[in-house]
Amino acid sequence: MRYVEFRLSRSLATGVPRVGFDLFTGMRFQYKDAMHEEEFAVTFEPGGKKAYVLGGTRLVEAAAVAGLTLDSPCGGEGTCGKCRVRFRNGAPKPTNCETELFSQKQRHDGWRLACQTTVIRPVVVEIPQASLLGSHHKILAELHGVSSAPTDPNVRKEFVELNTPRRGDDVPDLIRLEKAVGPVDLDLELLRKLPQKLREQSFSGTAVMLGGELIDFEPGDTCHESLAVAVDLGTTTLAALLLDLESGNQLAVASRLNPQTGFGDDVLSRILHCRENSQGLNELHESVATAIDEMIGELAASTGANRRRIYEVVLAGNTTMQQLFCRIDPASLGEIPFVPATGHCLCVSAAKLGLHIHPRGRIQVMPVVGGFVGGDTVAGILATEMAEANGPTLLVDIGTNGEIVLSHDGRLTAASTAAGPAFEGARISQGMRAGNGAIEKVLIENSGSHARVRFNVIGNLPPVGLCGSALIDLAAELLRHGILLPQGRLCMPHELPAELSDDLRARVVVDGKHPAFLLASSAESGLDRPIVVTQADFRELQLASGAIRAGTELLLRREGLSPGDLDRVLIAGGFGNFIRRSNAQRIGLLPPETPHSRIRFQGNTALAGARLAAISVRARQESQQLARQAEHVDLSCDPEFQNAFADAMLFPSE
Amino acid sequence: MRYVEFRLSRSLATGVPRVGFDLFTGMRFQYKDAMHEEEFAVTFEPGGKKAYVLGGTRLVEAAAVAGLTLDSPCGGEGTCGKCRVRFRNGAPKPTNCETELFSQKQRHDGWRLACQTTVIRPVVVEIPQASLLGSHHKILAELHGVSSAPTDPNVRKEFVELNTPRRGDDVPDLIRLEKAVGPVDLDLELLRKLPQKLREQSFSGTAVMLGGELIDFEPGDTCHESLAVAVDLGTTTLAALLLDLESGNQLAVASRLNPQTGFGDDVLSRILHCRENSQGLNELHESVATAIDEMIGELAASTGANRRRIYEVVLAGNTTMQQLFCRIDPASLGEIPFVPATGHCLCVSAAKLGLHIHPRGRIQVMPVVGGFVGGDTVAGILATEMAEANGPTLLVDIGTNGEIVLSHDGRLTAASTAAGPAFEGARISQGMRAGNGAIEKVLIENSGSHARVRFNVIGNLPPVGLCGSALIDLAAELLRHGILLPQGRLCMPHELPAELSDDLRARVVVDGKHPAFLLASSAESGLDRPIVVTQADFRELQLASGAIRAGTELLLRREGLSPGDLDRVLIAGGFGNFIRRSNAQRIGLLPPETPHSRIRFQGNTALAGARLAAISVRARQESQQLARQAEHVDLSCDPEFQNAFADAMLFPSE
Repeated sequence: MRYVEFRLSRSLATGVPRVGFDLFTGMRFQYKDAMHEEEFAVTFEPGGKKAYVLGGTRLVEAAAVAGLTLDSPCGGEGTCGKCRVRFRNGAPKPTNCETELFSQKQRHDGWRLACQTTVIRPVVVEIPQASLLGSHHKILAELHGVSSAPTDPNVRKEFVELNTPRRGDDVPDLIRLEKAVGPVDLDLELLRKLPQKLREQSFSGTAVMLGGELIDFEPGDTCHESLAVAVDLGTTTLAALLLDLESGNQLAVASRLNPQTGFGDDVLSRILHCRENSQGLNELHESVATAIDEMIGELAASTGANRRRIYEVVLAGNTTMQQLFCRIDPASLGEIPFVPATGHCLCVSAAKLGLHIHPRGRIQVMPVVGGFVGGDTVAGILATEMAEANGPTLLVDIGTNGEIVLSHDGRLTAASTAAGPAFEGARISQGMRAGNGAIEKVLIENSGSHARVRFNVIGNLPPVGLCGSALIDLAAELLRHGILLPQGRLCMPHELPAELSDDLRARVVVDGKHPAFLLASSAESGLDRPIVVTQADFRELQLASGAIRAGTELLLRREGLSPGDLDRVLIAGGFGNFIRRSNAQRIGLLPPETPHSRIRFQGNTALAGARLAAISVRARQESQQLARQAEHVDLSCDPEFQNAFADAMLFPSE
Repeated sequence: MRYVEFRLSRSLATGVPRVGFDLFTGMRFQYKDAMHEEEFAVTFEPGGKKAYVLGGTRLVEAAAVAGLTLDSPCGGEGTCGKCRVRFRNGAPKPTNCETELFSQKQRHDGWRLACQTTVIRPVVVEIPQASLLGSHHKILAELHGVSSAPTDPNVRKEFVELNTPRRGDDVPDLIRLEKAVGPVDLDLELLRKLPQKLREQSFSGTAVMLGGELIDFEPGDTCHESLAVAVDLGTTTLAALLLDLESGNQLAVASRLNPQTGFGDDVLSRILHCRENSQGLNELHESVATAIDEMIGELAASTGANRRRIYEVVLAGNTTMQQLFCRIDPASLGEIPFVPATGHCLCVSAAKLGLHIHPRGRIQVMPVVGGFVGGDTVAGILATEMAEANGPTLLVDIGTNGEIVLSHDGRLTAASTAAGPAFEGARISQGMRAGNGAIEKVLIENSGSHARVRFNVIGNLPPVGLCGSALIDLAAELLRHGILLPQGRLCMPHELPAELSDDLRARVVVDGKHPAFLLASSAESGLDRPIVVTQADFRELQLASGAIRAGTELLLRREGLSPGDLDRVLIAGGFGNFIRRSNAQRIGLLPPETPHSRIRFQGNTALAGARLAAISVRARQESQQLARQAEHVDLSCDPEFQNAFADAMLFPSE
């Protein structure tokens, strides 16, 4: 489940479009201003990416929301001066650190530190290349329009003009070609065509090699037409990039709902569909393959590219999604101990799986670690370069299955937790996906007797429910104000802290025998009913958050680490980019001990990893190593898991 | 065109069958005693191979006819004692050499030297392993039933019993298997089946690997069932061996006429058929593929083997035959400069080319040197190990295209000569293939006034024509008696040497204005016409023999060698085994300077090489190297060729 899909459906449903970038897919999309008056647009240049953040958000966080990770080795203390940016308008008053660091002219020109600055109005901010975190240059830089990674793609093209055979020069056709391009393999079909092709083209043309295999001898010089597609094969959302393999640049983006959702929202229901219907596997395979093929068509059409010049498609998805795409029966992924068919990268004929690219083009499916730690996670490990991190680094992909990876001392351990769908609004009484009308952010403004609830609704509409990020916000705020207790129990009205403001006090209501929190009254919602968050809703959140936290704890414990030892906490997936770190930490979803500056939003790492594998053979090989290097930890086998889970269910006491 | 086919058709047409071995294919076949009273059967033990030779033939030659090459480093001088054999009956009187070499008891037991002994009656002779030429042990030994070559086949089978996945042991299926058998590739189809196969077989079974690829996981332990087929893809005859890859033994043989002969006798007419018919290529491909598939069926049926246990088929044929089998348009093989599509070994799915072996089994097609030096020649180079020979070594495959290979100082040069079909009886006025009624051997018995013509007819029938070997015999004998002159001219009756016998003199007749030789009168032939060899027939022979001789000369000259420098002359192909060395030398087809002991009959080296490549990966790799190492000499480009050809057209003066 990727948040981006919500944003996209939102943009489809609302009025006058604006163009922006969704940074979790890197996709350009159109949407209507969805902000309340309290939110401000921050535009980052070069690249024009926008983030919409509540007033008071630190600029470094706003950049993270936009998918731009700034370098801040000092942890946001304002001392290292690495996260320097330039405000084109509305630069705030410099802090002491900034006065020390910048000359008067620089300050006048708008230079500030992103870690020291908060957003209090709409601004346009320039981020110099040097301020972006080194390791992410190559992933995010050209999303940002700045530069490109050097590429070492699997596709090699070489234009050659061969001598025409004549008496005394009668070497076999293929060997003649090999003398120019080096040794190659080729399939019988192409070998059958080669003699005629060579003669029709007067022994001149472009040899196209995929790895060591010759896949075509194209007329003329087509060296500059070399394309690939990277696909994030999400359970809910499909996202794809068209890539120029010469430069590594992305040329176009496309996304759509995964049509398999029609067969079930989660992987288990799709596995069940396969088990119960003889044609189930074919249906699931064909629906997603057709969708991806159509997306490839869109990508080509939007750039005027020839589909035959797309030679590879790299796919990253969870293990079940990948097997369904490849039409490999996922039966053993549906029962203990959830065994995948293979862990390796799969290299398959694109034509055989229904994708219309070059007829001898290939699909590369990312390697997987285990049944619930799939190619999307491996892509994430690859894209974040966490395996090469110096200090202990945690990667958390927050979703229905929260995948967690820990890198420490050259070891990688990975686990998945059945977090459940609470973060996606499911099983929450008035929960909803983050579509139009969803409350997506909640803030308790002011303190003491002035404290009052503010919220932000997607689409700038009256609220009709709340989505996962709002639930996290609300729980965190209520914990801070003593309305929600660490055990997860809401106070009954008579138990509320004495100093509580009237606004908050009035919102604690009794629903039958249980307390509940009135997030929006009927008047506020404009519905015939208020929006209420129940005790049971908070229990669901406890379960979801506790599962991820317990998983994190156990992975850390196996390495003899505690959360405070973590050097980096990387948040992957679209959803993660919309949560607020402090609130996620307050409820224990993210380690409370970790300084904010160590928590990084990485965007759609599955897509970023697939892209890397598409443009770089080295990255592809690395992903294979990473998948095998990572130790798959089955948390349910760990005797400590139940205890850890019970502990993690408790919200941290502050 | 392989002689074996004639022998087989002969056996089909005649009466009471006897079982023998055809040594050019290694095939067991039945035939009726085809010998005149002058021929004697020599049976070689162990193995029971038979050769039928004219009285007076040296035993070492008889063994060569039977495909058994004896070691004789002394060149047949009787001094080295390497070619010792034991007569089970009818041992001739010992020569001086033999008396020196063997004890009285040994001589009494029948020990003799094959180079010193002539055949004067039907005998049974034992050949000890040690007397066989070292380098050929592995090729011919088990044809001989003695021993087998150590094999390193491309097929690897391993029986494994894997742990069943359980909590805490959830590694992906393929990786679980790889932990037992090492890393493998596999195709998507098999990967799709693997999870179910593993579970149905309780994670136990036999992994079948072809090279690095897993092609099956068979129930139970099938390690001892590992088969391959080697095929000689002859223009006229197809021959196939079923091989046990564990021992390297051949289990069965099959052969039949190449049904492509229905589309034309030679390669050029088949190339023309492809050019002129849109379905021509498909027809030619399907006819030969169907025939080979049927032969595989025969091989399996005759041994009770399961076709699914045949994992590879190795094919050796000339370049055109190989391309037709693979359905690669041979158009550019039909025009100057006769360019093959590829020179490499081809590895192709057997199912895709219509062969029903294991569904993921493969066909390996031998690499080729050039348009007219094909996989059969490469197989011959491989089987004879001529590339590793110490002294200059020549391989001659006598047929419509005479392929010639010279090995010298680590270099291999190869050429083909358009010898034409004279050796196969075509373009000879009363020529025929070596079938029933063909005169196959001619001898002028006695000398001086007692000299008279003797001949041998296949099938022990009245003669109806003569085949190539008889034409060579006749030309040689007539040269010896001055009836045929070195320029190739037959004497007119008045020009005949004075001392000629009456029998010979009477046979020189005048046919119109030209002289001719009466080989068999109407009375002898039992036909209403005599069998006459015309002046034009000898001209055809001159052309055929001259082409091969000129090719030999030029290859030698390029290396600065003369025929006398040759350490070995290896004769390949079924036809070669039926000619008599002295006669072939007399007409110049083989270098007259070469001592007999240096001329070796190698039998069907195409099949022997294919068999080696089937049982040995090392041999397969070697064949690839040999094909590339060999320099293809286009004789028609050599400015000296026309001169050399004109010279070679002259029969040597004695």
